[in-house]
Amino acid sequence: MRIAVDAMGGDNAPEAIVKGSILARDEYNVSIILSGKENEIKKLLEKNTSDFNNIEILNAEEVISNDDKPVMAIRRKKNSSLVKALNAVKDKEADAVVSAGSTGALLAGATLVIGRIKGIERPAIGSLIPNMSGGFALLIDSGANVDSKPEFLYDFAIMGDIYLKKVMNMSSPRIALANIGSEKTKGDKLTVETYNLLENTTLPLNFTGNIEAREILQGKADIIVCDGFVGNMILKTLEGTVLELMKGLKKELLSSTRTKIGAAFIKPALSNFKSKFDYSEHGGAPILGVSNTVIKAHGSSDEKALKNAIRQAKICCENNVNELIEESIMRR
Amino acid sequence: MRIAVDAMGGDNAPEAIVKGSILARDEYNVSIILSGKENEIKKLLEKNTSDFNNIEILNAEEVISNDDKPVMAIRRKKNSSLVKALNAVKDKEADAVVSAGSTGALLAGATLVIGRIKGIERPAIGSLIPNMSGGFALLIDSGANVDSKPEFLYDFAIMGDIYLKKVMNMSSPRIALANIGSEKTKGDKLTVETYNLLENTTLPLNFTGNIEAREILQGKADIIVCDGFVGNMILKTLEGTVLELMKGLKKELLSSTRTKIGAAFIKPALSNFKSKFDYSEHGGAPILGVSNTVIKAHGSSDEKALKNAIRQAKICCENNVNELIEESIMRR
Repeated sequence: MRIAVDAMGGDNAPEAIVKGSILARDEYNVSIILSGKENEIKKLLEKNTSDFNNIEILNAEEVISNDDKPVMAIRRKKNSSLVKALNAVKDKEADAVVSAGSTGALLAGATLVIGRIKGIERPAIGSLIPNMSGGFALLIDSGANVDSKPEFLYDFAIMGDIYLKKVMNMSSPRIALANIGSEKTKGDKLTVETYNLLENTTLPLNFTGNIEAREILQGKADIIVCDGFVGNMILKTLEGTVLELMKGLKKELLSSTRTKIGAAFIKPALSNFKSKFDYSEHGGAPILGVSNTVIKAHGSSDEKALKNAIRQAKICCENNVNELIEESIMRR
Repeated sequence: MRIAVDAMGGDNAPEAIVKGSILARDEYNVSIILSGKENEIKKLLEKNTSDFNNIEILNAEEVISNDDKPVMAIRRKKNSSLVKALNAVKDKEADAVVSAGSTGALLAGATLVIGRIKGIERPAIGSLIPNMSGGFALLIDSGANVDSKPEFLYDFAIMGDIYLKKVMNMSSPRIALANIGSEKTKGDKLTVETYNLLENTTLPLNFTGNIEAREILQGKADIIVCDGFVGNMILKTLEGTVLELMKGLKKELLSSTRTKIGAAFIKPALSNFKSKFDYSEHGGAPILGVSNTVIKAHGSSDEKALKNAIRQAKICCENNVNELIEESIMRR
């Protein structure tokens, strides 16, 4: 199993990426191709390991940043770490790509360089949302597509289902449609029509109906299906709320001697609480619907998160997620 | 000024509604028409005041619940507290309606019984979202309309602008469009076209561009414009996240003797923190775009929240919010 890793993508690149890649190689028995600036990567490798087996460097002098326009960046920056990693997969030198860099560029690159699975019109991003009970839900699409058609959302459900079954070992993931009410007639045209498709599917999908945004953290669904505009709103509202609440709480806890004493007592409980929203445990977000495994690691990934994203890529490949998606799409 | 109050709507009706109405009459010099079951209301009035001036009862034996289908309920339950309150306004016996009952029914009733402002195709609900700095933003539309056209969103911006200027005393509210990115080309068809309308308006609107969902609690905008499906997702995700986080935090704080001691120290700081998300201070959500003032008080309104919703209705009427909306709509 060979994983191409974009060594230059992410807030903590290249250091956390190189370290995470070494950890993954040691733990999961994979070969790593580190795409990026050879000099920098070489130094980091030498600093962090004495074993250079199963790690090679693919020199790439350019870097795609979050400020680059995705499609243009993929077309013009042929020597970027991301495009080279994607080409390694296209040329069958690697089995999967992992990047913590620009989501837009990775998505554009996955579609333009690797290409879509036959029958899939729109690849989608599946983001794992942790809930308060220690579980999570896969939010698909969390931002790749806007102005979706019902057929796209139906495909998102199919892809998410296979992903959770094969990669997260769930036997029958509960699929829910993000909506403004629970009745099947609720919602906009898109959700009403998608409801019909999901309700009448002949595929073995465990469709449980609509889910309201208020219930998302309650663990009522394993897969939450929506258009990418809506998914982005859900994901970013959630992230923003958690962040602002934590900031606000911290401020209150530092506001007086009394609260500071209290804070010292609850510190372990607080970090336990915060860890429930730790995205690094679950790895990254799969881009589903492209012909090879592509994992978007969180932009702020540390070495542990990166290691987990590589593990996730490995499991995807081992379980033929993309082949199974193609089969299901042909039968839908 | 006469305010018709739906005495039977809301989780704490009719008690909190009657009490809040008495408070509002005493504090704001308004006349109250309490619509609902005469016997129950009479008993509550006698229990809570000895002054029966400027409070009258409009007997209504039926109640519309959250389980009723809105449009059907308005058409069939002619003797409901809500329909009678709306009719009081229609017949010019009252100037405004306040209800803490079913949002859908109030919205349907406002449109069917009172009617739309000339030129407004879709009335909208404006919900106030408190932020961490003690301010708030008006989220419009927060759930009345799905499948909106760009022209609807433009009108939402116009209505929100007048509302904040006249009712909240803001001189130049910052209007932002909820979107998945900051650039003007980002988003779906709806947001891209709405951006154009807002950017090129000849009305005195302070349009500041797109706002991402992650920034909503940061106080970067006073008005957040969006389709009702999207607004509902934002509002409910936000409410659900706050609720689940608070529950999770409480659980952690009660998990051991140590944390319980800490919790005792930080208790005042925690309630201060929680009060930032107290919706009752700001009153209710205006339904904008109908010919008379209609305020939706929060379903869980206590007497204070209800009192504030009545105050809000009074300010709307005094400042001719609906007339100003009609004027602006004619000039757009």
